[in-house]
Amino acid sequence: MNLSRIFTDKVLSMQPYHVPRSGGMIKLDAMESPYHLPDEMREALGKMLAMTNINRYPTARSVSLAAQIRDKFDLPKECEVLLGSGSDEIIQMILMATMRPNATVLSPVPSFVMYRQMAEILGMRFIGVDLQADFSIDENAFLQAVEKHQPAVIFLAYPNNPTGQLLDKSFVKKVVVSAPGLVVLDEAFTTYTDSSCTEFIAEYANVLLIRTFSKVGLAGIRLGYLAGNTDIIEQINKVRMPHNVNTLTQTTARFMLEQIPFVNANAAKIQQEKTALYDWLSVQDKIAVFPTQTNFLLVRVPNADAVFTRLRDEYKILVKNLHGTHPIMDNILRITIGSEKENEKLRQALGEILGK
Amino acid sequence: MNLSRIFTDKVLSMQPYHVPRSGGMIKLDAMESPYHLPDEMREALGKMLAMTNINRYPTARSVSLAAQIRDKFDLPKECEVLLGSGSDEIIQMILMATMRPNATVLSPVPSFVMYRQMAEILGMRFIGVDLQADFSIDENAFLQAVEKHQPAVIFLAYPNNPTGQLLDKSFVKKVVVSAPGLVVLDEAFTTYTDSSCTEFIAEYANVLLIRTFSKVGLAGIRLGYLAGNTDIIEQINKVRMPHNVNTLTQTTARFMLEQIPFVNANAAKIQQEKTALYDWLSVQDKIAVFPTQTNFLLVRVPNADAVFTRLRDEYKILVKNLHGTHPIMDNILRITIGSEKENEKLRQALGEILGK
Repeated sequence: MNLSRIFTDKVLSMQPYHVPRSGGMIKLDAMESPYHLPDEMREALGKMLAMTNINRYPTARSVSLAAQIRDKFDLPKECEVLLGSGSDEIIQMILMATMRPNATVLSPVPSFVMYRQMAEILGMRFIGVDLQADFSIDENAFLQAVEKHQPAVIFLAYPNNPTGQLLDKSFVKKVVVSAPGLVVLDEAFTTYTDSSCTEFIAEYANVLLIRTFSKVGLAGIRLGYLAGNTDIIEQINKVRMPHNVNTLTQTTARFMLEQIPFVNANAAKIQQEKTALYDWLSVQDKIAVFPTQTNFLLVRVPNADAVFTRLRDEYKILVKNLHGTHPIMDNILRITIGSEKENEKLRQALGEILGK
Repeated sequence: MNLSRIFTDKVLSMQPYHVPRSGGMIKLDAMESPYHLPDEMREALGKMLAMTNINRYPTARSVSLAAQIRDKFDLPKECEVLLGSGSDEIIQMILMATMRPNATVLSPVPSFVMYRQMAEILGMRFIGVDLQADFSIDENAFLQAVEKHQPAVIFLAYPNNPTGQLLDKSFVKKVVVSAPGLVVLDEAFTTYTDSSCTEFIAEYANVLLIRTFSKVGLAGIRLGYLAGNTDIIEQINKVRMPHNVNTLTQTTARFMLEQIPFVNANAAKIQQEKTALYDWLSVQDKIAVFPTQTNFLLVRVPNADAVFTRLRDEYKILVKNLHGTHPIMDNILRITIGSEKENEKLRQALGEILGK
């Protein structure tokens, strides 16, 4: 059996996406919320899930849930909302709908890895515009790349992952008006920042907004959504698998939309913990810490590989090692904000590894 | 905004997949099981779901659940199992991994519509080999098509949907040995037939098997699986979205794997109801009924469009109208087996519409 006659060159050359083992570990690697549902909420949700008729296919397209989401999150009334299995499936749908021959996908790099990965799997050309050493964007270079490559799709994460910074809105607007195709604003971390680009959806037909439930305590249910102009969303909807969001996820989302105060209180706790961790990190001799508009912090340490490994093996703390993923990520670790207790353990561990 | 510069020609020309409104209807259209979980089972499942930590991402790749599935369903020990969000996502993954330039996908037609739809969305060439008027396959014509088109992927539904018939195993074997690429055997309806092609997975590296939980009472959770040779599955795994199967679905699947006797008892009830419905249909003057190895029956009526519409509008019974989907489906309705009560209502309605 000759694999190279069957699979695409891209697939043959790829490594599978690596998710590290995390059993028994303090997980500060995946931008998850550390907060479980409290017992009474678990019980109420369990009862609601128990009542679903899982012998039937999920509600097709989940139009009413999509409308609820639009209203709860103050998206423009005239925009259309499409649900997907996390941002991942939303990105996949956008690219499957736009994979014309020679179509280009453009994004700053480093950014969310799925933009490049999905584009390349689908045979599209991916152009990454390097961010600068201080994690800021070279606005002129990016606009020139838009002009030169005429991308079918531009992804701008707002704020960016893994650098955690917001673009200037005036720059986003420049990209939107000069783009020949779609501009996808990925607001996965919207809960952790005061700024949003929702107003662009109403104003510009080529702007799409991605959001996800993953960063606010619901990573396990896999739910993301796409908001934008109705005509555009209708085209993307055509490539959606008919029953892409299962009944249990839909039910949980409905339940959680009634628990926004709980979600917001957790986000506030995370912000508070983030400030405390930032303050501690910023006075450590061997650590440079970078502020972000997300639920993680970036730190630069003398030897990220060694610190990562010791945290994992000696302290059972898992963070994300970004060293080697891009030159500006040299010796950078991404640390997701955990619970107070988890963050304290991290501080102890870093103190011991790097010396106070 | 010029849509034709952004979206692919295929997407622009497509209609979105239509799922009919079914609120308040007797649903005999979607090959679902009519049987809900009994109360005590709902309660136990609800408690288990309540205990999941949905703030964390799902277990990556769900290796242990996949192994449980392999063991419970007597798949060859040496095969690898990959989970997906229903058969739909499995089909999408297979095709994303094999979409080489000019790659061809071959299948009998009519068959499961997603084979063609996904292939064409991904820009692959789809060749359908027409089934014969009696729903059987022209084996020589199919083997000639394999020889001529050298398909990267062949889909054979075993049994076929919507015709409900099994291929001869000796023919399947001929296809397998003459295929230059993958042969995907889709056993979505395996619960409703005595025959399976599992032995081919162990014997031939290019054979893949798809199964789903949808037809046995779990359509709402969206879980399908792919079994096959490890080297092949490893390539397909690379295009899988890292967290494609959510935590609630994984938990429900684990729960239901301990309820196989319940699932089998429901399948037996459906078989019994199917026999009763078949017997009734086969003595009706204006109805020709076709046996199947599935949980649905096909009937030919004098005017399928009219019967479909009257069933829906006057009797609130939804069946699948296949008229117009392929010449051999002329005036054919696909009727999923419902509960005893639902089937009785269908008999009454058909009796009134067509005259006893």
